[in-house]
Amino acid sequence: MPEEANAILVAGLPEEAARIASALRAAGPYPVWLAEEDFPPEAIGCLVAYRPPPGLLARLPRLRLVHGTGAGVDALLADPDLPPVPLGRVVAPELSRMMVHHVLAALLRHLRRGETYAAQQRERLWLRHPPRDVEAFRVVVLGTGALGGAVLQALSALGIPAAGWNRRSGPLAEALAGAMAAVVLLPATPATRGILGRRELAALADDALVIAAGRGGQVDEEALLAELDAGRLSAALDVFNEEPLPPASPFWTHPRCVVTPHIAAAPDPAAVARCVLESMARIARGEPPLFPVDRARGY
Amino acid sequence: MPEEANAILVAGLPEEAARIASALRAAGPYPVWLAEEDFPPEAIGCLVAYRPPPGLLARLPRLRLVHGTGAGVDALLADPDLPPVPLGRVVAPELSRMMVHHVLAALLRHLRRGETYAAQQRERLWLRHPPRDVEAFRVVVLGTGALGGAVLQALSALGIPAAGWNRRSGPLAEALAGAMAAVVLLPATPATRGILGRRELAALADDALVIAAGRGGQVDEEALLAELDAGRLSAALDVFNEEPLPPASPFWTHPRCVVTPHIAAAPDPAAVARCVLESMARIARGEPPLFPVDRARGY
Repeated sequence: MPEEANAILVAGLPEEAARIASALRAAGPYPVWLAEEDFPPEAIGCLVAYRPPPGLLARLPRLRLVHGTGAGVDALLADPDLPPVPLGRVVAPELSRMMVHHVLAALLRHLRRGETYAAQQRERLWLRHPPRDVEAFRVVVLGTGALGGAVLQALSALGIPAAGWNRRSGPLAEALAGAMAAVVLLPATPATRGILGRRELAALADDALVIAAGRGGQVDEEALLAELDAGRLSAALDVFNEEPLPPASPFWTHPRCVVTPHIAAAPDPAAVARCVLESMARIARGEPPLFPVDRARGY
Repeated sequence: MPEEANAILVAGLPEEAARIASALRAAGPYPVWLAEEDFPPEAIGCLVAYRPPPGLLARLPRLRLVHGTGAGVDALLADPDLPPVPLGRVVAPELSRMMVHHVLAALLRHLRRGETYAAQQRERLWLRHPPRDVEAFRVVVLGTGALGGAVLQALSALGIPAAGWNRRSGPLAEALAGAMAAVVLLPATPATRGILGRRELAALADDALVIAAGRGGQVDEEALLAELDAGRLSAALDVFNEEPLPPASPFWTHPRCVVTPHIAAAPDPAAVARCVLESMARIARGEPPLFPVDRARGY
């Protein structure tokens, strides 16, 4: 057995975990195990997981690094058995690019009245409408980290007016006043829970769009539903307070709501492996991981 | 009566023509008439129209400029009464931006499997699929003028590999070989008629997307339909051989085809007025219009 445990354990949905394990084996020198295999707990120096199965962390006495599979590590932080070792997360151009594409797809569909034309196509109706006014289409991006920053940059490149908001900015309701779209990309922390409440939603302009991606729990879903029912706002929701979204949720069938199953920015196995392996090397040198998580902030 | 006729006549759909006339009056010193008014033919020095009503051009003896309402002037060139005066067209950042947004909305929806998730939402189905691979998603943009150039620039900003094609490039089928998307933005000329034929469509990769915008007539619709029926290609069509698209067209109901009613880049009245007024000033100084049309090329 080496001085320090250096094997990597990967936990998660079987197919996804297997892809990450393959990428780790292909790109690094460390032994790699899957959580459902009969792995040697004493050899595991690093756990890679989105949400570890209950009790798994308690079985790993020699961990030196716990690493998420995406940008958010809220599920790791919520694990009562999380040891006091460095935490790493995935920050990668591929992840940012996926998020940019997801947000733009939702935003441009709204801007160009995609739902209206889809309904017209079903009726074989050839009828033009003025597009929503891009000059007036101010977007507020909640979250100015790697993902939010990339979205702001893309909006600027496309000539869509946008501004970022984070916890150091002023009150959220003021920042949202009159905005035509709110893009929620904040990390999931106690401070962001329910942050887009009734007052913040009411501040948005009539006909505005709410895009929720990244992490659920930040939108007051009841207040949002009331705004959708009133015909005042539209929504494109990729994350929810409860996932998978329960079949009884009114969002599934609401004509003003697009539902996607938390696919905005799926972890790319190669990107996960790159971050994990670089952080392993840094930990071995006594340095912090590549993208260290500040436990006090929660991201 | 002045030395040179300097009134502007606007022809077109009543509401659209009225908006262009208002913009011309607001921004310029010239008298402006609508074609359905009792205008003085001898005073008209400039006609602004997309497709003039038959015979209108023959009634205007003192024209010094004929100006389109968008990027394409094919309908003007097809008018048998078009006099041998300078022809102008609209090239404007607003027009390019609208086209960029339209093309991206279609492309990103395909890339992120928007149709699949919309179908799943109807079934309340929470199920993830790997997105289409953006690294392999090579886009070929047919047309490298103001619109095609703007689309290429936007794709580059979003990290989507793309290349332009125009009449000076090599054979189209070779340029399209293995491409995941073809964006048709060519001017409507005899040389571009049916340019995306059976052989060119067959060159595209399996699962590729055909986006037609700008001007109809460039896609072999029968060949495209066969590819859609075979489940090999998808399409987002904004322009057609016949517009409005006849109710009997199979494109309306095809599950692999998105139909929009020629709305990709609608002329913005202020942009039309800006181009027309600047060209009027240039003509008065004996110069060519701002964006002169080469009749031999057709754009």
